[in-house]
Amino acid sequence: MPALSAAEITTHQTKVPAWKVENGELVRTFQFQDFLAAMRFVNGVAVLAEEVAHHPDIDIRYNRVRLGLVTHDAGGITTKDFELAAAADNLI
Amino acid sequence: MPALSAAEITTHQTKVPAWKVENGELVRTFQFQDFLAAMRFVNGVAVLAEEVAHHPDIDIRYNRVRLGLVTHDAGGITTKDFELAAAADNLI
Repeated sequence: MPALSAAEITTHQTKVPAWKVENGELVRTFQFQDFLAAMRFVNGVAVLAEEVAHHPDIDIRYNRVRLGLVTHDAGGITTKDFELAAAADNLI
Repeated sequence: MPALSAAEITTHQTKVPAWKVENGELVRTFQFQDFLAAMRFVNGVAVLAEEVAHHPDIDIRYNRVRLGLVTHDAGGITTKDFELAAAADNLI
């Protein structure tokens, strides 16, 4: 799976507009009502991640969860990252 | 609950020697066999955190979990942080 070009990334971003590229990663910070709601989301993301064997960086700050996606094997962002981003969006 | 002094922190650290102070936080990175084992630990930490209403920063990197503890209300590390550190250690 090849890393996407900058132009391809911009095209894919239109489908997940809440996600930004930061330091070569596709990132979004989700905010929830409280810690337990944040943890329910994290566990949902964990199921998705295991299903596709692709694991985001997950940073939990009480009711906020930051996901960071990159395909290390490809050396960049791939369609796999955009698919997991869209699936995470569908959890909320 | 008052923030501990540097000397008090050093004394408390002898009970949780795997934890270090970094940028004013008590931190430890735990390593597990795989992502699912890391998630089981994170969910155990989440239960402990809710019990004492004190929530660590939790960073998940596949099979590694970094916990960061500080008592924001006290402006520093307190005995509450050391208690949660010891409880997290007891999960593994």
